[in-house]
Amino acid sequence: MIIVMNAHATPGEIDAVTERIKSLGFQAHLSKGSERTVIGVIGDERPVGAEVFEAFPGVERVVRILHPAKLASRDFHPADRVIELPNGARLGGKDVLVMAGPCAVESREQLERAAEVVARNGVRVLRGGAFKPRTSPYSFQGLGEKGLLLLREIADEHGMAVITEVITPEDVPLVAKHAQILQVGARNMANYSLLKAVGSSGRPVLLKRGLGATLDELLQAAEYILAQGNEDVALCERGIRTFERSTRFTLDINAVPVLKNLTSLPVVVDPSHATGKAELVAPIARAGVAAGADGLLIEVHPHPQEALSDGAQSLDPDAFGTMMGEIRRLAEALGRHAA
Amino acid sequence: MIIVMNAHATPGEIDAVTERIKSLGFQAHLSKGSERTVIGVIGDERPVGAEVFEAFPGVERVVRILHPAKLASRDFHPADRVIELPNGARLGGKDVLVMAGPCAVESREQLERAAEVVARNGVRVLRGGAFKPRTSPYSFQGLGEKGLLLLREIADEHGMAVITEVITPEDVPLVAKHAQILQVGARNMANYSLLKAVGSSGRPVLLKRGLGATLDELLQAAEYILAQGNEDVALCERGIRTFERSTRFTLDINAVPVLKNLTSLPVVVDPSHATGKAELVAPIARAGVAAGADGLLIEVHPHPQEALSDGAQSLDPDAFGTMMGEIRRLAEALGRHAA
Amino acid sequence: MIIVMNAHATPGEIDAVTERIKSLGFQAHLSKGSERTVIGVIGDERPVGAEVFEAFPGVERVVRILHPAKLASRDFHPADRVIELPNGARLGGKDVLVMAGPCAVESREQLERAAEVVARNGVRVLRGGAFKPRTSPYSFQGLGEKGLLLLREIADEHGMAVITEVITPEDVPLVAKHAQILQVGARNMANYSLLKAVGSSGRPVLLKRGLGATLDELLQAAEYILAQGNEDVALCERGIRTFERSTRFTLDINAVPVLKNLTSLPVVVDPSHATGKAELVAPIARAGVAAGADGLLIEVHPHPQEALSDGAQSLDPDAFGTMMGEIRRLAEALGRHAA
Amino acid sequence: MIIVMNAHATPGEIDAVTERIKSLGFQAHLSKGSERTVIGVIGDERPVGAEVFEAFPGVERVVRILHPAKLASRDFHPADRVIELPNGARLGGKDVLVMAGPCAVESREQLERAAEVVARNGVRVLRGGAFKPRTSPYSFQGLGEKGLLLLREIADEHGMAVITEVITPEDVPLVAKHAQILQVGARNMANYSLLKAVGSSGRPVLLKRGLGATLDELLQAAEYILAQGNEDVALCERGIRTFERSTRFTLDINAVPVLKNLTSLPVVVDPSHATGKAELVAPIARAGVAAGADGLLIEVHPHPQEALSDGAQSLDPDAFGTMMGEIRRLAEALGRHAA
Repeated sequence: MIIVMNAHATPGEIDAVTERIKSLGFQAHLSKGSERTVIGVIGDERPVGAEVFEAFPGVERVVRILHPAKLASRDFHPADRVIELPNGARLGGKDVLVMAGPCAVESREQLERAAEVVARNGVRVLRGGAFKPRTSPYSFQGLGEKGLLLLREIADEHGMAVITEVITPEDVPLVAKHAQILQVGARNMANYSLLKAVGSSGRPVLLKRGLGATLDELLQAAEYILAQGNEDVALCERGIRTFERSTRFTLDINAVPVLKNLTSLPVVVDPSHATGKAELVAPIARAGVAAGADGLLIEVHPHPQEALSDGAQSLDPDAFGTMMGEIRRLAEALGRHAA
Repeated sequence: MIIVMNAHATPGEIDAVTERIKSLGFQAHLSKGSERTVIGVIGDERPVGAEVFEAFPGVERVVRILHPAKLASRDFHPADRVIELPNGARLGGKDVLVMAGPCAVESREQLERAAEVVARNGVRVLRGGAFKPRTSPYSFQGLGEKGLLLLREIADEHGMAVITEVITPEDVPLVAKHAQILQVGARNMANYSLLKAVGSSGRPVLLKRGLGATLDELLQAAEYILAQGNEDVALCERGIRTFERSTRFTLDINAVPVLKNLTSLPVVVDPSHATGKAELVAPIARAGVAAGADGLLIEVHPHPQEALSDGAQSLDPDAFGTMMGEIRRLAEALGRHAA
Repeated sequence: MIIVMNAHATPGEIDAVTERIKSLGFQAHLSKGSERTVIGVIGDERPVGAEVFEAFPGVERVVRILHPAKLASRDFHPADRVIELPNGARLGGKDVLVMAGPCAVESREQLERAAEVVARNGVRVLRGGAFKPRTSPYSFQGLGEKGLLLLREIADEHGMAVITEVITPEDVPLVAKHAQILQVGARNMANYSLLKAVGSSGRPVLLKRGLGATLDELLQAAEYILAQGNEDVALCERGIRTFERSTRFTLDINAVPVLKNLTSLPVVVDPSHATGKAELVAPIARAGVAAGADGLLIEVHPHPQEALSDGAQSLDPDAFGTMMGEIRRLAEALGRHAA
Repeated sequence: MIIVMNAHATPGEIDAVTERIKSLGFQAHLSKGSERTVIGVIGDERPVGAEVFEAFPGVERVVRILHPAKLASRDFHPADRVIELPNGARLGGKDVLVMAGPCAVESREQLERAAEVVARNGVRVLRGGAFKPRTSPYSFQGLGEKGLLLLREIADEHGMAVITEVITPEDVPLVAKHAQILQVGARNMANYSLLKAVGSSGRPVLLKRGLGATLDELLQAAEYILAQGNEDVALCERGIRTFERSTRFTLDINAVPVLKNLTSLPVVVDPSHATGKAELVAPIARAGVAAGADGLLIEVHPHPQEALSDGAQSLDPDAFGTMMGEIRRLAEALGRHAA
């Protein structure tokens, strides 16, 4: 940590900061520049917040040197991590894993049809929402446990794994019983009770970036899960809030290579939520793979016009098939394999 | 709801949309413009998402006419709402209510000293965190129930009410037992399980805007609480995420008059979190009151340099006293009364 | 244009709006919904601002139906436009055109070396800044006309076209004399005097999106150029301002397919400025091509550590060669050809 | 400047950076922490960009210590600066200066009426646009020189000074002839040719923050003007681009006290552009004054419904009078005087 004193800091103020550094068990390292004194904090700064020093008179600002998410960092775990699923599908490494299915499980018939479409295109992980966090209390909130049972049954018919969202700590055991991957949604990225619960669930977790969260915060959210001993965490970029109004969110494509540099956890892109429009899903899915993503999360509906949620951003069977062909060719051109 | 068809929409596509409108129990109202056909949906559109129509071929975009948060809207409840606390303090109406105290309850001594400072300045609601949602899993996470008991005991000594954050649905009964106002933090604005739980708690709720949430979404989150029959909801602007890097967040001061127009729920400003710096708290608190806020949430610490969290943005006793004087004079200049 | 009246609008207020609509030569089309009256404005609304009606009492909001940038729209010019350069290179259509070279022309030796590197990799358009808009008045501001002459001479040796930035209307004739493509930088996207000047320059123009500009505004800026009779306009996404701090800007990858839908003008991606870091340039360049971009703008420097500007985001010769190989394979996988 | 090396930086990489520091005339100061080496650059770093070092292998990031805008900084000029106008009005110091008038000069009659309204309310500086930068090329672009002459003539009748926008360097002499304050609009904040031109105009300048510009960049833009020897520069916060869609821009109220800390230049708030809606102008104007602004820029139109631009955000005469009363009472409550 580097503490920059302001231009008028007195020797007494500098001493007070130095004392505080020592009292926390660190060494202080003074450097007097032409117009500012800078104090280095020597030691593992991670457990200490910048705010500890920002409150001192004479301090202009505090700069962290070490990333606070240690377990999530590539420094700590240099080799790419790979999440292996029971059916042999892998998230991370050479593969590009496509997880696809409807936004919400609506009925047996709808899910059967969607599963059949994605399985036919080589998909090995079925997505579908049973517990749905909805912006309005008056919207369809999902089928709950009944939806979970449908997911499990129909995925099994195709040898697929299941990924589905869990929205509250109490539901974790139930969801973990039926799904291979627990999804933590963007709205819950900083729901720390939930992060702890999925951290001790024994299941791989797909953690979505909050729509107002920095990449640093995403890594710290992952750290909550990793700190429970669960190493199977994948990170998902699904679009952030910006001023641009022609799409629902702005997919932060830079996030893909930035995360791949900072961490060895697999990185997934969700073009459906990031754009909100079916016609944009394939181009953004291709961009995600080209940027180095290890997986994609895609909404597919047999009849988007009849969907109870997210119809506008769901691919129909034909569009999904076309996209899968493109993704395969792109992955090959980059020496990877998509399925 | 208004459905704008694209320039090349066919009569068949227009018919399909019209049929869907009728099948949902609405009337359709066609209007052929110079280059686009526009279809009006006549009826109470609130239960229906725009996405229902966006998925149809030939649809360019869908514009909502009615705000989806009905109970929260000023159309539904025109008169300003006032939350009355057992000790006689009021949030809403002519008063400007200051709620102040430490970020986190750290110890009996710290809380006693802070409570004494704020009470001496006329404050009638003591704030303090017992359950703390922290970005890093390695930061101080609060004293939990022990903190709640301290809050209750020390607030009682001064005849103050207590406001404190609740972060998970299971904790609601415990927190509701000790606090007069339950705070839902920015990270949990879209934690719908929690919103439902505080909605049925029987306690007033202060709902903070998510740092990436629009005002529309804030109102819809309030709607989750109101829909449980709890009408005592106040909204809190605490800064949003923007590109500006000199402050931790950007306080959206426009939000104050915009919310006062859209809803009759009381509006509170939190200048401590919005700025992250003690020296900016008083100017932004003044701005909030001048813009029409009904309350302020202020972090005060007897010794900010020793705080376990948020020291940099906590006012010390002298700065708090000065700010209170300014707030009182400003409120009077606008025909209100601050305490 | 659709005018939504508020819930309490009086018949007199509705009449006043209707009268104004008629006085502007349009027809008014009333639609009374369950809680709001909506007035449609029938006619070509483009020359009229929404603000004309927003100022009327009783008006809640105004929704535009037609995009204000007519000449730039795909409705007006459905077929993809292709910009043909004198040396046979083409921007738009089946080709993916890479424009590469140093951020700033610093010396003959630097430019010769950079030109040799990019030409060897098949690049047909040399980029390089002669007039540099710099955030600080104390930074290197470019070689001016001397830089232009170097660009021209060295590009000619390799049969390359030149693209370079013009920053003020007076310089347009000089820059147009030496360059085949005039670049309008992000800071000048809304410098309308400059847009008019390049519009009448007789040269193709690469228009960069302002870092705080919406895609609608980018199209309206292009409209200023098109309205001067210059149809050779390409649009460039180069990153926008968001809250994310790990990269200098956030490349809005959604912008690529959104623009391709809205307009037939070619779309270019600039991964160098969008990321600010050399190690991120290749992944983002790949993403741009995968999303459908028609061109790339890439900073290359023979010795990035010695660059007078933008060294951190400049590729060295090896990294550039590797990137070009990847781009070619990706373009082929999508049925295009990159050079 | 502080250079943070990454965890795997080699001694050779550290040496290369150290050599470069020395070759630029600085001293290097090494500090080996537990996991990173940090190199301090001792000397006046302002003329050197962070990018000079970011391009070196082994460098993780570079942190500036000194603000690059020296002349604009409060370190350099501690005392509040006051701009004195020929008619005795003052921007800065104890006064709160209101500058008001129509968005655009439309006709003699309109301007006479507007001037009469603002003068009657004690306003001493008349605003009005003669050269208008408009998003669409098809919108009203202002009366040009004719508008300037009207402004001058009508302001003189009331003893008012004139503030008006200049949009291109060639127009500076003409505008400087007729106006006491030259306004540089948000779109032109980074139009450096224009900044240099107003810097040598001999007139005070009101510099508006770009809608995507950080406060650091605003200060560096001011530095361009100050570096020409013009010390009469005021900074204007007029709203930035954020994800919030209920207002046209988000007024960054934090900017007021942040700027007052960083610089001694006067700070002005423009609530008309920041909100885009007349009903929000007064609350935001009050907030600006309460936060410490030295001036306000307000759009007033005798008949907003007939305005050729910005009618929706223009106050009518009654609303303006009410606002002026509130502003005066607020200023007094804070020990200042508004007019």
